[in-house]
Amino acid sequence: MSENFDAVDVIITKRGKGELSDGQIDWVIDAYTRGAVADEQMSSLAMAILLNGMNRREISRWTGAMIKSGERMDFSSLSRPTADKHSTGGVGDKITLPLAPLVAACGVAVPQLSGRGLGHTGGTLDKLESIPGWRANMSNEQMMQQLEDVGAVICAAGDGLAPADKKLYALRDVTGTVEAIPLIASSIMSKKIAEGTGALVLDVKVGSGAFMKNVEDARELARTMVDLGTDAGVKTVAMLTNMQVPLGLTAGNAIEVRESVEVLAGGGPEDVIELTLALAREMLACAGRGDVDPADALKDGRAMDAWKAMIRAQGGDPDATLPVAKESHDVLAPADGVLTELDALKVGVAAWRLGAGRARKEDPVQAGAGVVMHYKPGATVRAGEKLLTLHTDTPERFERALESLEGSFTIAPGGSRPDLLPLVIEKIS
Amino acid sequence: MSENFDAVDVIITKRGKGELSDGQIDWVIDAYTRGAVADEQMSSLAMAILLNGMNRREISRWTGAMIKSGERMDFSSLSRPTADKHSTGGVGDKITLPLAPLVAACGVAVPQLSGRGLGHTGGTLDKLESIPGWRANMSNEQMMQQLEDVGAVICAAGDGLAPADKKLYALRDVTGTVEAIPLIASSIMSKKIAEGTGALVLDVKVGSGAFMKNVEDARELARTMVDLGTDAGVKTVAMLTNMQVPLGLTAGNAIEVRESVEVLAGGGPEDVIELTLALAREMLACAGRGDVDPADALKDGRAMDAWKAMIRAQGGDPDATLPVAKESHDVLAPADGVLTELDALKVGVAAWRLGAGRARKEDPVQAGAGVVMHYKPGATVRAGEKLLTLHTDTPERFERALESLEGSFTIAPGGSRPDLLPLVIEKIS
Repeated sequence: MSENFDAVDVIITKRGKGELSDGQIDWVIDAYTRGAVADEQMSSLAMAILLNGMNRREISRWTGAMIKSGERMDFSSLSRPTADKHSTGGVGDKITLPLAPLVAACGVAVPQLSGRGLGHTGGTLDKLESIPGWRANMSNEQMMQQLEDVGAVICAAGDGLAPADKKLYALRDVTGTVEAIPLIASSIMSKKIAEGTGALVLDVKVGSGAFMKNVEDARELARTMVDLGTDAGVKTVAMLTNMQVPLGLTAGNAIEVRESVEVLAGGGPEDVIELTLALAREMLACAGRGDVDPADALKDGRAMDAWKAMIRAQGGDPDATLPVAKESHDVLAPADGVLTELDALKVGVAAWRLGAGRARKEDPVQAGAGVVMHYKPGATVRAGEKLLTLHTDTPERFERALESLEGSFTIAPGGSRPDLLPLVIEKIS
Repeated sequence: MSENFDAVDVIITKRGKGELSDGQIDWVIDAYTRGAVADEQMSSLAMAILLNGMNRREISRWTGAMIKSGERMDFSSLSRPTADKHSTGGVGDKITLPLAPLVAACGVAVPQLSGRGLGHTGGTLDKLESIPGWRANMSNEQMMQQLEDVGAVICAAGDGLAPADKKLYALRDVTGTVEAIPLIASSIMSKKIAEGTGALVLDVKVGSGAFMKNVEDARELARTMVDLGTDAGVKTVAMLTNMQVPLGLTAGNAIEVRESVEVLAGGGPEDVIELTLALAREMLACAGRGDVDPADALKDGRAMDAWKAMIRAQGGDPDATLPVAKESHDVLAPADGVLTELDALKVGVAAWRLGAGRARKEDPVQAGAGVVMHYKPGATVRAGEKLLTLHTDTPERFERALESLEGSFTIAPGGSRPDLLPLVIEKIS
């Protein structure tokens, strides 16, 4: 880095709604990673970015600088094309589990670097770790070999990928600067671009259980990320999908694995099947295999075979019995009628409080904890029927979980149908 | 502090243009002083305040919380009323030097806690320290005794006064969050209210050499500070005064003391006399002595007597020869005409670069360094006449000082009069 800048000048530029130059952006990301720009300077800059924004060039440069802060993976030597999916996080969002082996079974390799859950949205690695023996950590060489042999890998991102993002994300978390679209988009995309995937499908969740509560914000985030991917040479599309209601009938860890395996076996809830197939079609199309129908691979068992191979390759036993929580508690329908609402955020918080999620990074999670839903909105229920079942190893958690479920559902006695958003709201490419 | 808050919640409230509650403000200032709120959280909050503002209640509570972070002085046992003056800082602003003894000579005690200079604006303590033997540090008891005996004290603020402000000011300095009117106002007023003065006159400078470059910003700052003082029971007025042009004919340390003594002896530049008398009248009026005319005390030598007593009481020799810089360099008028402009900022930066000021808190200053002006705007000059004389002990500094003086003055050959703002622009009470 030959040029030298001053942190206060950079902050004052953005404070005054100015554009940061390429040199300023390269310098501030590099200097922050090295510790030459202090946390208190970066957080002040992050707040100025949150309130005053960045334009497309700035976001693209910012993302590029974060990619350059670490290593960059390369799957171009693989015998097949690669495609990845990223979800902005939701309740009951187990889609990666059936999706990765399904797409692999269709001839496109899926190098999925995942994270653990924080707060009410679950983490893919937490779910998979409920499978006895399964390991999240892999070397780059192991990952490459598994992609060649099995076609899909879901593992933890190494420390070498976008270390600037890792440092900045931890800072934003404690300084009230998480909710900035330029920073969210560059954080996600720096990791996905550094990961080296050839194509990327973004599942941008909208609704109470998602980070983005309304379609406008979700659309802006999706558009920003699609632009970033495209600028970096990654074929990228985004789908805005409904997160007003949880996905599927489970929110937890082992219970979501079980539901995913049902889908791979040809059963499972309709919404999980629909979204898995929709995202698989986009991934295949982006990777140049739009001619393949993933529904076939789901039907004929190839996706299930790929799942078992993928789990085994990472030390897991796909046929092992999954953990079950020690205690359960039913929530009954208080009246006859149509279930018109089931709030994703409240169900997510309940699952989290039951032990499925963590409040701090270092907390453990319970494999068996979570919420099983017996009905989804639109169903007719009768008073006294089971609506939800809560699972935990630690029954003292029921009370706070039940508190978070207050007002989580609505039963309309008239029998009127709920007015629901479609599962896939729109596509941005 | 019984209630507990979360730093991120406080930040998010202000980020969303919300009002901080009294409890949030009390908690965040106390927790920051104790180290329970981190620098990176406070800087992010400071940026949100800078961009989204605070209302009168919030600023007042914020100021109160900073006052409560330390000790509070009390001069109510003195036999005379107290009044203080605070200037937001300018070039050649030596007014405190003649003003404090002048007001003391009129029967009102002046407990002036001052600071050192940073950047292009000079510091009152730096100027006084050019007097052989003079000491800036005093205990509260010594200060009280000198106020009783002499009626005026100019000394360094102790560490016990508003420690939250001290910590926050250092943070703002490196995080691009200095220029926030709520934070500037609360920083100044927390110290002045904690200092325990009964009345306060604020000299809010406007123009190139000042912090506030335009009248609107200066008026907002003045109004905010007057409200804060009034809410705290301190009789407060503010004067907006011109800092487009340096005050007097000197900008430095010893050279400004010399000019101040000239004023006390009945001579000196007109603008310094005018502003000293205007501020003295306001201080006397605020302290209930509006019947006394300070011009009399200046004329009959009582102000000079008070000056000598004040300097002696702090170990200084008022009759000692003041330091003179080793080297000097003249800037000559390039043409005949009327001097229409003499830019305060450029002169201030030149004096600073000559050694009169410091770039970092720990730097020493040169007692003899600075700029002497031979003419002020409005004067007719002839080509080849001395316009400015630069003084320093270290002649290698002339080059950068001369660079900063480029474009600092304008000589209009036509002989037209400059259109100057009045010295006292307006009064806010």
